[in-house]
Amino acid sequence: MAAHQQPDRPHATESAAAPTGLWLVGARGSVATTAVVGLLALRAGLVDPIGCVTERPPLTDIDLPAWDQLVIGGHDIVDTPPAKRAEQLAGAGVLPPALLGAVSDGLAEVEAQLRPGYHPASHAGAQRAAADRLAADITEFRARHGLRRVVVVNVASTEPPLPRLPEHADLAALEAALADPARTVLPASAVAAYAALRAGCPYVNFTPSTGIALPALASLAEQVGLPYAGSDGKTGETLLRSVLAPMFAERALRVRSWAGTNLLGGGDGATLADPGHASSKLESKARGLAALLGSDVRAPLHIDNVPDLGEVKTAWDHVSFEGFLGARMSLQLTWTGYDSALAAPLVLDLARLVAAAHAAGQRGPLGALAFFFKDPLGSTEHRFAEQVRALAAWACELGGRR
Amino acid sequence: MAAHQQPDRPHATESAAAPTGLWLVGARGSVATTAVVGLLALRAGLVDPIGCVTERPPLTDIDLPAWDQLVIGGHDIVDTPPAKRAEQLAGAGVLPPALLGAVSDGLAEVEAQLRPGYHPASHAGAQRAAADRLAADITEFRARHGLRRVVVVNVASTEPPLPRLPEHADLAALEAALADPARTVLPASAVAAYAALRAGCPYVNFTPSTGIALPALASLAEQVGLPYAGSDGKTGETLLRSVLAPMFAERALRVRSWAGTNLLGGGDGATLADPGHASSKLESKARGLAALLGSDVRAPLHIDNVPDLGEVKTAWDHVSFEGFLGARMSLQLTWTGYDSALAAPLVLDLARLVAAAHAAGQRGPLGALAFFFKDPLGSTEHRFAEQVRALAAWACELGGRR
Amino acid sequence: MAAHQQPDRPHATESAAAPTGLWLVGARGSVATTAVVGLLALRAGLVDPIGCVTERPPLTDIDLPAWDQLVIGGHDIVDTPPAKRAEQLAGAGVLPPALLGAVSDGLAEVEAQLRPGYHPASHAGAQRAAADRLAADITEFRARHGLRRVVVVNVASTEPPLPRLPEHADLAALEAALADPARTVLPASAVAAYAALRAGCPYVNFTPSTGIALPALASLAEQVGLPYAGSDGKTGETLLRSVLAPMFAERALRVRSWAGTNLLGGGDGATLADPGHASSKLESKARGLAALLGSDVRAPLHIDNVPDLGEVKTAWDHVSFEGFLGARMSLQLTWTGYDSALAAPLVLDLARLVAAAHAAGQRGPLGALAFFFKDPLGSTEHRFAEQVRALAAWACELGGRR
Amino acid sequence: MAAHQQPDRPHATESAAAPTGLWLVGARGSVATTAVVGLLALRAGLVDPIGCVTERPPLTDIDLPAWDQLVIGGHDIVDTPPAKRAEQLAGAGVLPPALLGAVSDGLAEVEAQLRPGYHPASHAGAQRAAADRLAADITEFRARHGLRRVVVVNVASTEPPLPRLPEHADLAALEAALADPARTVLPASAVAAYAALRAGCPYVNFTPSTGIALPALASLAEQVGLPYAGSDGKTGETLLRSVLAPMFAERALRVRSWAGTNLLGGGDGATLADPGHASSKLESKARGLAALLGSDVRAPLHIDNVPDLGEVKTAWDHVSFEGFLGARMSLQLTWTGYDSALAAPLVLDLARLVAAAHAAGQRGPLGALAFFFKDPLGSTEHRFAEQVRALAAWACELGGRR
Ligand SMILES: NC(=O)c1ccc[n+]([C@@H]2O[C@H](COP(=O)([O-])OP(=O)(O)OC[C@H]3O[C@@H](n4cnc5c(N)ncnc54)[C@H](O)[C@@H]3O)[C@@H](O)[C@H]2O)c1
Ligand SMILES: NC(=O)c1ccc[n+]([C@@H]2O[C@H](COP(=O)([O-])OP(=O)(O)OC[C@H]3O[C@@H](n4cnc5c(N)ncnc54)[C@H](O)[C@@H]3O)[C@@H](O)[C@H]2O)c1
Ligand SMILES: NC(=O)c1ccc[n+]([C@@H]2O[C@H](COP(=O)([O-])OP(=O)(O)OC[C@H]3O[C@@H](n4cnc5c(N)ncnc54)[C@H](O)[C@@H]3O)[C@@H](O)[C@H]2O)c1
Ligand SMILES: NC(=O)c1ccc[n+]([C@@H]2O[C@H](COP(=O)([O-])OP(=O)(O)OC[C@H]3O[C@@H](n4cnc5c(N)ncnc54)[C@H](O)[C@@H]3O)[C@@H](O)[C@H]2O)c1
Ligand code: NA
Ligand code: NA
Repeated sequence: MAAHQQPDRPHATESAAAPTGLWLVGARGSVATTAVVGLLALRAGLVDPIGCVTERPPLTDIDLPAWDQLVIGGHDIVDTPPAKRAEQLAGAGVLPPALLGAVSDGLAEVEAQLRPGYHPASHAGAQRAAADRLAADITEFRARHGLRRVVVVNVASTEPPLPRLPEHADLAALEAALADPARTVLPASAVAAYAALRAGCPYVNFTPSTGIALPALASLAEQVGLPYAGSDGKTGETLLRSVLAPMFAERALRVRSWAGTNLLGGGDGATLADPGHASSKLESKARGLAALLGSDVRAPLHIDNVPDLGEVKTAWDHVSFEGFLGARMSLQLTWTGYDSALAAPLVLDLARLVAAAHAAGQRGPLGALAFFFKDPLGSTEHRFAEQVRALAAWACELGGRR
Repeated sequence: MAAHQQPDRPHATESAAAPTGLWLVGARGSVATTAVVGLLALRAGLVDPIGCVTERPPLTDIDLPAWDQLVIGGHDIVDTPPAKRAEQLAGAGVLPPALLGAVSDGLAEVEAQLRPGYHPASHAGAQRAAADRLAADITEFRARHGLRRVVVVNVASTEPPLPRLPEHADLAALEAALADPARTVLPASAVAAYAALRAGCPYVNFTPSTGIALPALASLAEQVGLPYAGSDGKTGETLLRSVLAPMFAERALRVRSWAGTNLLGGGDGATLADPGHASSKLESKARGLAALLGSDVRAPLHIDNVPDLGEVKTAWDHVSFEGFLGARMSLQLTWTGYDSALAAPLVLDLARLVAAAHAAGQRGPLGALAFFFKDPLGSTEHRFAEQVRALAAWACELGGRR
Repeated sequence: MAAHQQPDRPHATESAAAPTGLWLVGARGSVATTAVVGLLALRAGLVDPIGCVTERPPLTDIDLPAWDQLVIGGHDIVDTPPAKRAEQLAGAGVLPPALLGAVSDGLAEVEAQLRPGYHPASHAGAQRAAADRLAADITEFRARHGLRRVVVVNVASTEPPLPRLPEHADLAALEAALADPARTVLPASAVAAYAALRAGCPYVNFTPSTGIALPALASLAEQVGLPYAGSDGKTGETLLRSVLAPMFAERALRVRSWAGTNLLGGGDGATLADPGHASSKLESKARGLAALLGSDVRAPLHIDNVPDLGEVKTAWDHVSFEGFLGARMSLQLTWTGYDSALAAPLVLDLARLVAAAHAAGQRGPLGALAFFFKDPLGSTEHRFAEQVRALAAWACELGGRR
Repeated sequence: MAAHQQPDRPHATESAAAPTGLWLVGARGSVATTAVVGLLALRAGLVDPIGCVTERPPLTDIDLPAWDQLVIGGHDIVDTPPAKRAEQLAGAGVLPPALLGAVSDGLAEVEAQLRPGYHPASHAGAQRAAADRLAADITEFRARHGLRRVVVVNVASTEPPLPRLPEHADLAALEAALADPARTVLPASAVAAYAALRAGCPYVNFTPSTGIALPALASLAEQVGLPYAGSDGKTGETLLRSVLAPMFAERALRVRSWAGTNLLGGGDGATLADPGHASSKLESKARGLAALLGSDVRAPLHIDNVPDLGEVKTAWDHVSFEGFLGARMSLQLTWTGYDSALAAPLVLDLARLVAAAHAAGQRGPLGALAFFFKDPLGSTEHRFAEQVRALAAWACELGGRR
């Protein structure tokens, strides 16, 4: 079910190096703010593009929107000014304090592009009306800035897992339910994904929330001919796992258990402190490990909210494995990172790459972008080295067509 | 300088699934004894081949000597009986005590095939005489057991690094020096490698000692048409590094320093306690890291002899890296393993694979086996995923020719 | 509420160096079996008393039962022979395999002293009848071996926490309820503690289960004049915490969070896999940390059952603290130990020390033994250094009275 | 050889709560600058005294100079302005950037009190002349500010170990050699200590350099009746060791090896990158561990300069120990801290406490301050809990005399 080429569409040979919108759902959060500050700094040539894989071969072979061709807009349900959020992130060690002055004008411009997001708790009426309003915000943004396309990226707070309903699998039934003021058939992330598609925008889900991952929305994307990617950015512990688990397999070593504990503060920590919200994340992580190691490996996993850690995430993994003649051995890992600093460059990369896929007329789930995700849409590949290879092949193909 | 095919040689299409010798230099050591006990147990069907990559696709596509087609012989300079060494290893947790009874007859048979090794300190006369005696031990072993071929594998104690002499680069000059009773132009490992080649045997250097890695010996191997592989089995910290360093690179993260400390006891610990001997190992490890990360990454590295750890090796690595906008992050690893349990299955794998290369008429350094080594001969590739791929391609090619 | 002297009782000046019973509740478990094998080996002079604090000054000043004056008996609800359990523990690395032969006769003798324990699920009738039977087992044991006293030590599986009932606070009401066949007013551990007191025996609760920690049982102990100690042996992570938390305090450093994850297999792992049972342990650990650090320190704590770890327990702690001018720093710990090897010598120590307290006429909770426990009875002191001091003072006082 | 009371001296009952100088040797370094910024912030009430043990009972019982009674001066051999050094420390995460504005006037005042230090490389003439000049700087400072006393604290770069000379043990011979322009009989730290004594000042050596630790200087201190303390502030790995090693001993567990690796950048990292300079530090750490564990414990120890870590110090310790029946277990620690943030409050504490000792007429080595040092002068006690107790007793005694 990989994204496929549409040879008949006119823009199939178009270059993506054109004015492009990046519409952030959750635009006032840590990941979004870090991405925005970073984009402004890259544009001003103040920093190196560390962490941006689109600045490395082979992705440099693809025609991509340049840093100064990316225009930011977005939705959020709080109204913290980006400049204030940036200051907090600088205090927490994520952003260099010295950058703040240089980007303050840019942040004010971004602020002017932000619109109120949708949340079921503060909305009266049918979900369809909310989606229409969200879509209108995006199309106006596109028109206002004369953009060739807008990529919508979900970086909003993680939602709890969703009970499956019949409407989720049937577009007509879903749209009927959306029109019914008495129903709340979709979580906010899926309302936003629906709005993106209806506004004609490619879509990326950087979170473990539902987003576009419902059969009805997949068929809508197919119908309107749009590409999309997800789910849940792979930035820390899971990245390590997708690198290390294949190593054990390639060396014929038998992993017996893989235990993990994640300590984090920040906004994401507070959200995940709620067991309901954490369970989406835990499920997304567990799916990855089972795909890598098989489901008989015992893999207890915890996420703890530890507010004093601020924006730092610390993950400890303990791997117990068996070697020749049953010898028992272990590997321990401690990863200490700024989650937002790991996520933000990937958000920029994804905006550029999905813009290129759209320019090339690709549609459906972009399995070649599995490299970026804990729970890849359009791919069952979790091994990092294979994901690197698939991404390179995809880039080669796209690049060759220029 | 990869191994190449010799289409004109008669055995080029021969199968390696034939009686094959595995001649261990250092045959009474931990790695050798673990390999021997494991082979006996595999042959008897008492254990699963955990850690043996030749029992996994795609290597299972190649015709290889079966476990019961491998016959063990070897050299050592001490006379500890293998059965006694095995008992010590069982006490130290490397071997399951319950296996010892089942393999005791097999160990006695192996014991009967072992011959005194060469050591400069206990030898009078020219090195050539020593080499001739070593070669004769091997050819007699081959004849005695009617073996199709014998693979010589160096698993002897690590030697100190070797000052380079002009004779090392010129076979004729080297052979003249070898004939001179007043010279000691080669370290013991290279005398053994020379003897292997003169006995017509493919050769593997599982240690960081010199072995075959001298231009004069490489040209001899070329001349007599034999394949070889090395150097220094990649089993723990370096394996992890070859997996993790590429991850940072693929994610465009900037590694700033990679510090390591290795604690080990056992025979290898005692040898490496001597700074002279340790420096070969440290150099071999450092070369790998520089190849992976570039030479400007600060990478202090220590090996400490901690006798009370017995056969357990504990390695701690601390990686400091920089992400988006200069955010400073870190990864720590603690690896706790039985070195010999990690090395032994690879020794068996290498014997089988090098036998197959020989059967296929390959000669020169087998760069496709870089997967197994810290300091690969015939390859400059240190990234694990690329090594996996190269090995698979080689296997495919060999397998296809059956 | 510390234990106090009874100057008027005739045995107040008696020496404890007399034939003494050690009655283990949970006598066929890992801790019990390790204690028994160790006692047999100590008695035979085969091992050093590593881990036994009664063999170190100042405790050597007290008159204690010698190793060969301790006679083992006990209750359990399974019938695994101690010799078989010992074999499993040797396979898992807890016991040296070489000892098993030397202790097999001793284990057979112990086996002959074991009696079926009480479990509510397999008992019909009033709990009082069960308690009477347990007490009779112990008094017969005492008589059969001509023992001066018997110390009962609970090392049975951890129970879930107990809902508090009014009967728990009133001995008469409790005894009435015990006599009622329709009630199950006490958990098994408390039935056993009641039986111990009724048999005239001092009692130790090495587990986090209820045991003697009910007001009604405390008043019974007081009434019959018996000493007791508990609860929950302090052997790993909590031991470290009781040492490290005071260090932060003494250095005026502000601990902000102290997160912990425990991975364990074995029988205890299986029991604690059940959240009900784990919660007693978690509560006992959390009480200790709050006492040390104050209750505003965030301290998430997990216990995971990881069967492949066997008898090894691995605990990871992450401490985040603040220093001068708010500097944020951290300490991580990984403790890897054999739980039973840590617990067993303390069980022997406790048997000896509580015997000495009994010989000296002490009664009530022995707060001076807080050194041994996560959740000390008769003491609110959790700081290890203060516990060391209190134990030494107690020993001095006892020793001085000889 | 503990400090003793001088009952006959008039100031024996004087209070230390008086204007007091703190003269820092190495006044422009990280530790000094952090101490100065912190003192200014404490004086302004901008921060809590985290890390200051003199603000905790029982030390609060002693009459000490208040924060605003401490006046800073010092020597250094570079001329980086404190304000610039403070900015670098803020960039590196040691100081909160927000404090800098508030302390800039204070830093400028301090800057005006700093004088060029002595270094053999840039001095011509006899060492005695250098010492006289250093002493004059201090006495002028004392007079200028009307200070009751000045405590001199060495926080300069670590020196290499010193070859022992006969003059070091004989004050008259030493002073003769000091007067000889052709000799360089003392290292810079000892010249500064000599100058301090000659200026009538109590002295603290916070570094592993020689300082006052020569018999001739000890006899001078005795003669002039001054107290002193040292050596080498105990802030990280050694602090942990002095807490944990006694735990193993108290539990009768047998430590087998204790390996350590320290990674650090900053000025101290650069100095210690030189093996000559590092060896003082390694010796001071090793002496402590041997005192705690006995000298047969294998304890390999490394200090690596890793410049990218900046002011962060990361230490990894691996402890291997043996329990009951020889069970092999381990503890690993990773300590990540800002060295200067750990050291600075102790420097302030020491200035206050040594001022109090001086006010009380104590002289000689203040063994009661072993709590603060890796290599305590006047004490052989390395166990943290015992050091806590000794300090408390000393405080009690001093406090009682008020
Ligand atoms: N390394 C990483 O940081 C990483 C990796 C993978 C996934 N993610 C995911 O990225 C997301 C953002 O993380 P963060 O650290 O920035 O969290 P955050 O809490 O700082 O920001 C989330 C933002 O989303 C906003 N929001 C919530 N509901 C919304 C809605 N219905 N519509 C619009 N906006 C809404 C919030 O107001 C907030 O501003 C999380 O879901 C997280 O799981 C992050
Ligand atoms: N994971 C691993 O164990 C691993 C990985 C890579 C490399 N190696 C290398 O494998 C080698 C063997 O390691 P080990 O743990 O078995 O060591 P060991 O000390 O147990 O065994 C080495 C054996 O070599 C013998 N020997 C020494 N000099 C000899 C000579 N000149 N000729 C013949 N025999 C000689 C010794 O007597 C000894 O029996 C070492 O060089 C080690 O560095 C091991
Ligand atoms: N370091 C340590 O090992 C440590 C430290 C503190 C506390 N403890 C506690 O010690 C206890 C024993 O641990 P273990 O590892 O030996 O566990 P285990 O599961 O190996 O043994 C427990 C034994 O208790 C028996 N038992 C269960 N219910 C019983 C009953 N009602 N009457 C009599 N016997 C009963 C079981 O059959 C089993 O044989 C646990 O409660 C554990 O929490 C252990
Ligand atoms: N936790 C800790 O930071 C800690 C703990 C124990 C000991 N120490 C010791 O404290 C000292 C200072 O550490 P730092 O991190 O501030 O180092 P630093 O390099 O930042 O500062 C040292 C200062 O001393 C100055 N100096 C060098 N030689 C001098 C001389 N002869 N006279 C006067 N000044 C001189 C240097 O110019 C520099 O400004 C070191 O010796 C270190 O080992 C520090
Ligand atoms: Na190479
Ligand atoms: Na001392």
